[in-house]
Amino acid sequence: MELTGCDQGMDPQTGEPVGAAVAHTTAERVHRIGWAAAEAAGRLAALPLTERAGLLRAVGAALEEARDELVALADRETGLGPVRLGGELTRTRVQLEFFADAVEEGGLLEAVVDPADPAALPAPRPDLRRMLVPLGPVAVFAASNFPFAFSVAGGDTASALAAGCPVVVKAHPGHPGLSARTAEIVGAALAGAGAPDGSFAVLYGTEAGRALVTHPAIKAVGFTGSEAGGKALLDLANTRPDPIPFYGELGSLNPTVVTPAAIAARGAEIAAGFVASFTLGAGQFCTKPGLLFLPVGHDLTPALVDAVRAVPVGPLLNARIRDGYTEISAALAGVAGVRNLTPVEQPERERAGYRVPARLFAVSVPDLLARPGELLAECFGPAALVVEYADAAELVAALSILPGTLTASVHADVPTDEAFAAQLIELCVARAGRVIWNGWPTGVAVTWAMQHGGPWPATTGSLHTSVGQTAARRFLRPVAYQGVPQELLPPALRDGNPLGIVRRLDGVLGVDGLMYVDGPVTG
Amino acid sequence: MELTGCDQGMDPQTGEPVGAAVAHTTAERVHRIGWAAAEAAGRLAALPLTERAGLLRAVGAALEEARDELVALADRETGLGPVRLGGELTRTRVQLEFFADAVEEGGLLEAVVDPADPAALPAPRPDLRRMLVPLGPVAVFAASNFPFAFSVAGGDTASALAAGCPVVVKAHPGHPGLSARTAEIVGAALAGAGAPDGSFAVLYGTEAGRALVTHPAIKAVGFTGSEAGGKALLDLANTRPDPIPFYGELGSLNPTVVTPAAIAARGAEIAAGFVASFTLGAGQFCTKPGLLFLPVGHDLTPALVDAVRAVPVGPLLNARIRDGYTEISAALAGVAGVRNLTPVEQPERERAGYRVPARLFAVSVPDLLARPGELLAECFGPAALVVEYADAAELVAALSILPGTLTASVHADVPTDEAFAAQLIELCVARAGRVIWNGWPTGVAVTWAMQHGGPWPATTGSLHTSVGQTAARRFLRPVAYQGVPQELLPPALRDGNPLGIVRRLDGVLGVDGLMYVDGPVTG
Repeated sequence: MELTGCDQGMDPQTGEPVGAAVAHTTAERVHRIGWAAAEAAGRLAALPLTERAGLLRAVGAALEEARDELVALADRETGLGPVRLGGELTRTRVQLEFFADAVEEGGLLEAVVDPADPAALPAPRPDLRRMLVPLGPVAVFAASNFPFAFSVAGGDTASALAAGCPVVVKAHPGHPGLSARTAEIVGAALAGAGAPDGSFAVLYGTEAGRALVTHPAIKAVGFTGSEAGGKALLDLANTRPDPIPFYGELGSLNPTVVTPAAIAARGAEIAAGFVASFTLGAGQFCTKPGLLFLPVGHDLTPALVDAVRAVPVGPLLNARIRDGYTEISAALAGVAGVRNLTPVEQPERERAGYRVPARLFAVSVPDLLARPGELLAECFGPAALVVEYADAAELVAALSILPGTLTASVHADVPTDEAFAAQLIELCVARAGRVIWNGWPTGVAVTWAMQHGGPWPATTGSLHTSVGQTAARRFLRPVAYQGVPQELLPPALRDGNPLGIVRRLDGVLGVDGLMYVDGPVTG
Repeated sequence: MELTGCDQGMDPQTGEPVGAAVAHTTAERVHRIGWAAAEAAGRLAALPLTERAGLLRAVGAALEEARDELVALADRETGLGPVRLGGELTRTRVQLEFFADAVEEGGLLEAVVDPADPAALPAPRPDLRRMLVPLGPVAVFAASNFPFAFSVAGGDTASALAAGCPVVVKAHPGHPGLSARTAEIVGAALAGAGAPDGSFAVLYGTEAGRALVTHPAIKAVGFTGSEAGGKALLDLANTRPDPIPFYGELGSLNPTVVTPAAIAARGAEIAAGFVASFTLGAGQFCTKPGLLFLPVGHDLTPALVDAVRAVPVGPLLNARIRDGYTEISAALAGVAGVRNLTPVEQPERERAGYRVPARLFAVSVPDLLARPGELLAECFGPAALVVEYADAAELVAALSILPGTLTASVHADVPTDEAFAAQLIELCVARAGRVIWNGWPTGVAVTWAMQHGGPWPATTGSLHTSVGQTAARRFLRPVAYQGVPQELLPPALRDGNPLGIVRRLDGVLGVDGLMYVDGPVTG
């Protein structure tokens, strides 16, 4: 798919080239883009918060205005369908607006004002004021599976701009035409809204991406993609003369646990919900539930198999993902103890484009514990593994060996299961960034409370999220101002809170003249 | 100083052994300590916040109770003197109490509650609640130069306990007797206050430290020490099968800029203040101002030289620091263009114990720009370099090549210097974690607003601080709970805010029934 020297879009429905190829960015141009971003950084950081928010809103509005064109372009290169892609474009716009709101509130600056205290121990305390400042230019590696929401104008770009950082995107080769067109739209919107030259650029090609990670002007990297690709770039970031933070979202197994009581209460609903979730978007979500823990003797197999056979599954995004899916699901089928619940009748080569069959396997906990390395490999695409546990001890043993994951779901029934459910949730919290009760992990809401991240290998940095307002925290660092006169302080730290932002004054969180009450908000 | 198999304390006043040697911890014992910490992690995390705060207060009280014994022990092994050490013990206790207060306030959980929203775009939103949870066992590498505040019960330990994480300290070999005694006191205080077994341990020896960083149970590392030592451990942390965050505070040049107007207004005071700051604690602070930028033609040299000759400087902490100081300051003296303002008359070998002379050098900006690598090496100990700038352009050029630093100080005069001072502050913010106006960087107040960190190589992670309340953020990760019933939620996330903590409800920060007004606090 990735030709030498250019990215060529392919139609997943046919496997044929679509649109013009986009040339890879030369090393010389990466060099210039990086330094242009460095030039822009100070001016971008200095924009008032309202203008910074305006940049985000301008990008959102421009994407909305080009909706029909962009959705059509995305569908040609990804095959994800206009309904899903339209929803994703909405999410991308809403996300930009959400960050704009957060920028205006100012809470993301984490401003703190500590007046001088001559009585402090062990020594008198000077006037100290602290806020977060932008790290500098951010490299963003776009994902294949979200051509809007995790691509050129996606969450990493939005959160880096919200932090006040210039952005250089390395486009995903799977949708080069869409990337190039989105880049034009975003670039024009930013320029029109007053962003300094150099605030935004998109480049193409693996070598250009590597040059970007090692560019001295780049101060952080956001990445969504495979564990192997992410690990290679992480190593590059770590071995720079000045190591920089690398935020990689690398994939996940997303275990789902079902108790006997939940099956008794809602078995059919659970079987249908699971198949719908793991086949959604042809299973190409980092939150796809890849493991389903069911009690031995459950009666859900017929319902699961029927649902898998009935579900329409779109083509995979590209030939590499299709080949990976075919290889890993075949390997899974061959592991000792694994039963293939959905043997394939139709020869795969007769399927059009990058289409593949959905697949469901089953294994017992003892067999899983015997071969965790082979059975816990992520299979990107519409496949999942049912793991059957004989009792609570087996379930706990199996959960305890799972690697870090983005999500973990528990289907149980209260009050029947209450004590056991508490233990299951504790096990899930220990290894997941999001714990879901009686629901499915696909569908990541963009809210203040969302956490999209998790312990290694789900992400390279479990302290952070790539979705939700705190995603901007990845691209900010604290600076304290000691004894600095009012006129030389940033407005966010001046006496009287001229920006009216949320900040901590003398240890107390608040904002001018507003009352906050948790419970019904009355202020 | 570090004998094979044990740490032997040495008296810096005499260079003679003092106290009994402490045996290095065996690999087998490191293994057990790590797993004991893993065992403790869940129970420690589950303690109510008031009990977690109680652990911190108990440690502070126990240290206070043993004040006389600990200060005497510390003085024997560090030679820092009872006044400084008494103040440092106070700081250490106050720091533990400060974290206890922050734990009780609950803001460090960053709790967020987003009620379900059926009207949300692009899709209805589930109930989502998010808080920070402890990472798990933390390894803390103690520093030589703060035997209390950055050692066994220092800031890393306090902030990790505040986060709810078990702590395993690798003691610094420079004060083994003090470390062992502090370990007994802290361990007993924690056990008495209800900490689970395994919550705290101290180990000894370089190999034990390396084994600790690679121990599967360890989830983060706090380190204060040299760039070489920190980089070696950072590489170990990064190349684990599961890389873990490594927070290294590696040292700093701490540039200080003085404008002509400031000299005209307060020249004598600046000269005296600078010498007092860079020789304080024998120059063994990571915040020691190592560079002083003065305008060409200034008249401060006699005052600086007189102050250096007059200041009493205690012995350095150990033979390795003394040898490093001697070597690096000699190398500095030999660089082309460097003038030695304080040539030494007395043969060094006649000085008692680990005493060294304070030293001051001078160089021009052009000479600095010609040999930045040689001239910008940190010299730990009582030495500093005056850099003379011909004009504003030279000063800006010199500041622009400085590496990341913990602090940067500006001595200027407003309104005379206002425009130039604004530019200087901007340059400082770009490369420092704390910017100080008309003051000195030594003395790090423990407050909400303190930032002790900075861009590489000052620290390995500029997003974080090792002093102040947000230091606990290094050892916490976010978890979102989706649709979880009230009775299975952590109390911090339940409806009605039963803990009465600061949290964000439906996008608005606040706490039950309290009014926060920035300006005079009236709630």
